Amino acid sequence: MRRLLVANRGEIAVRIVRAARDLGIETVAVHSDADVDAPHVRLADRAVRIGPAQAAKSYLVVDGLIEAAKESGADAVHPGYGFLSERASFAAAVVDAGLTFVGPDAATIERMGDKVAAREVARDAGVPTVPGTPGGVEDVDAAVAAADEVGYPVMLKAAAGGGGRGIRVVEDEAGLRKGFPQASREASTAFGDGRMYLERFVRRARHVEVQVLGDGESAVHLFERECSLQRRRQKVVEEATAPGIGDDVRAAMTEAAVRLATECGYRSAGTVEFLVDDETGEYFFIEMNTRIQVEHPTTELVTGVDLVAEQLRIAAGEPLRLAQDDIAARGHAIEFRICAEDPDKGFLPQPGKVGRVHLPAGPWVRSDTWLEPDSAVSPYYDSLLAKVIVWGADRDEAIRRSRRALAELEVEGVPTTTSMHRALLDEPWFAAGEFHTGTLEEWL
Amino acid sequence: MRRLLVANRGEIAVRIVRAARDLGIETVAVHSDADVDAPHVRLADRAVRIGPAQAAKSYLVVDGLIEAAKESGADAVHPGYGFLSERASFAAAVVDAGLTFVGPDAATIERMGDKVAAREVARDAGVPTVPGTPGGVEDVDAAVAAADEVGYPVMLKAAAGGGGRGIRVVEDEAGLRKGFPQASREASTAFGDGRMYLERFVRRARHVEVQVLGDGESAVHLFERECSLQRRRQKVVEEATAPGIGDDVRAAMTEAAVRLATECGYRSAGTVEFLVDDETGEYFFIEMNTRIQVEHPTTELVTGVDLVAEQLRIAAGEPLRLAQDDIAARGHAIEFRICAEDPDKGFLPQPGKVGRVHLPAGPWVRSDTWLEPDSAVSPYYDSLLAKVIVWGADRDEAIRRSRRALAELEVEGVPTTTSMHRALLDEPWFAAGEFHTGTLEEWL
Repeated sequence: MRRLLVANRGEIAVRIVRAARDLGIETVAVHSDADVDAPHVRLADRAVRIGPAQAAKSYLVVDGLIEAAKESGADAVHPGYGFLSERASFAAAVVDAGLTFVGPDAATIERMGDKVAAREVARDAGVPTVPGTPGGVEDVDAAVAAADEVGYPVMLKAAAGGGGRGIRVVEDEAGLRKGFPQASREASTAFGDGRMYLERFVRRARHVEVQVLGDGESAVHLFERECSLQRRRQKVVEEATAPGIGDDVRAAMTEAAVRLATECGYRSAGTVEFLVDDETGEYFFIEMNTRIQVEHPTTELVTGVDLVAEQLRIAAGEPLRLAQDDIAARGHAIEFRICAEDPDKGFLPQPGKVGRVHLPAGPWVRSDTWLEPDSAVSPYYDSLLAKVIVWGADRDEAIRRSRRALAELEVEGVPTTTSMHRALLDEPWFAAGEFHTGTLEEWL
Repeated sequence: MRRLLVANRGEIAVRIVRAARDLGIETVAVHSDADVDAPHVRLADRAVRIGPAQAAKSYLVVDGLIEAAKESGADAVHPGYGFLSERASFAAAVVDAGLTFVGPDAATIERMGDKVAAREVARDAGVPTVPGTPGGVEDVDAAVAAADEVGYPVMLKAAAGGGGRGIRVVEDEAGLRKGFPQASREASTAFGDGRMYLERFVRRARHVEVQVLGDGESAVHLFERECSLQRRRQKVVEEATAPGIGDDVRAAMTEAAVRLATECGYRSAGTVEFLVDDETGEYFFIEMNTRIQVEHPTTELVTGVDLVAEQLRIAAGEPLRLAQDDIAARGHAIEFRICAEDPDKGFLPQPGKVGRVHLPAGPWVRSDTWLEPDSAVSPYYDSLLAKVIVWGADRDEAIRRSRRALAELEVEGVPTTTSMHRALLDEPWFAAGEFHTGTLEEWL
């Protein structure tokens, strides 16, 4: 790998450029008209304009990205997260163009992106899944029969789903008979695929995910992250490792993730997501993300492993450099997503012109960002301004440092979610690590 | 400890304020007229003006600092490095005023600050010292007799010395007879104490220092730092751990440092400096620094231990929290001192007005600094603008990341030493870790 096109923007594009630089790989940034002065453009060795501000006309245009890669002499493409990162057809198009895709192959993306297929892989690997239907159910009568076995409340989910669309919880048969056709129609509209499956609904669930690296032959895990603090199913605060689970659950879950990655011949960095029943300690496979995650820095800070660099090495054909025994977790890391949203106005995204910017720095504080003084926050993209990631020798130290870091954070001109994070740090339930996927919304 | 006065300025004042905040301790900054807008002032909970720009009229005025502490209700004082940090009379004055001094007691500072007394402590602890006179020599004839035993070339050093003053190397008896009275006069003028001692001069010497923490009862080490890259006896680049020594030397040297700290009942963070003969692998105690060092972050990045926080805890009366077995070194860290000096003009300090500032950030890059856009670099203080500290899973990774970090560094308006650091990173001898205390000046 000699020259890498980074098919993304914002903080993750900056992150990828830095990892490539660390490995001596040249970088090509792409940018829409809105991003012509963005830091990922300035930090890269060269840059190519790919279209107007709208993502649908720039960062989501497969042909434009492939053309930019060829034109700039790139031999590899990193998709980042979001945008085209989990679209199998993009991975295939990159490979068809004779370039290296930094991620698993198209078939794996497709297989693990299909919730029903992914659950089959999990079962083959002996990884527990949420009790539910083995595959999609044909119609409402089949759904009712299945729900009787699984037990109410059940969750209806779209087989091709994501981002929370096509999901609903039903409490009884009447609710199921009413909700099924609605949810199926929603899924059809959103994903072009109306198949639905059923799962047991866990009331107090933690979202815990295991980071894996695979080279197609073998796989290792890099411990887990706790990501239960969510708003509208979007993660808000993430931690590595997970405070709320025991060592036995941790060991079983990380081993299960490695079995799953090995079973599907996984090749790249990936995340195996689990739901943990906070009452019983049971854990169930939910899905696998076949890309780098927003919250990957928490794992990096506790393990010392550069996940993006490992993605690049694996894509370049190197076998895994790390054996499981080489990987240890030290201390605790917490990530705060700083978004241009107003917590006092229902978290409405607030694009606008930024003035002064002061990002926290110093000992054990990492700010991953694209933000600079006088930046423009565009309405065309997601509202993430920065990720503040803090490490401590233990969780208490990480929390105390997080208070200091967030006290230093200043963004003039647009409201941000910083005040919410500051308030969160003072909550006893947060300090105690006692929360589940519903806690943040209840608290807000 | 409830409220801490930080008796310093610049990046170390910012560093100390951050550590205090992490522990929930309130902070009081002090500032001269030149520093009224400095970040350490803004980050602290309150600030006290202590005088005009000249350090001799502000940061070096013991009574003014004690008054500021009392006036602001502080119950403790952290001296940082430089300024009054190793002046026993300051530590004594702080204690006399009923306040806690964050550092060892005045008697220890005095004892370890006297080179002759410090070498006696080392001998008592069974720590090898450079072959030389056991104490000061009375006159030139005694010096000649001693040099015959030690063997030429020998180094003449002031017993009360520091900062390179009163030091000279002589090659033979004639040189000694000529140099001794000159050096003694120099020492008299500089330190009010003309006593000299003699040491074997090691031609290819590495400067390796061991970080220790003691609570008066016991002590632990936090591995060593390599600080051989010096210009005019000032460190320029530091690393943890040291690349050029074997595991046996490392083990022996770190154990020796712990013995020394235990022998003198050391209470705080301290640094035991050794000279390592690059040809024979022999190591010799040189001196102990009874304060936090500029290069302490390299140790922090490999051990995960917050040295300033540990200083504060120990000063507050807590026993050591860490047993030796709790302390492990992971990976490698390198610090680059970014100074407002022009490498093309003999490293002349270049005060002035700064414009744009872009400090490196992101994965495994820590910038400790007081610099901000539009800062003024004052001629009254040292020229250190920032310390860029980079961590890698191994030394190669740290070097590669350092290239990236220094490529991102931008300071508009004043020349800096960044270009020298960038050039250094491309030197094969640096990559190989093959250098000694003379290498940097030869290269320059």
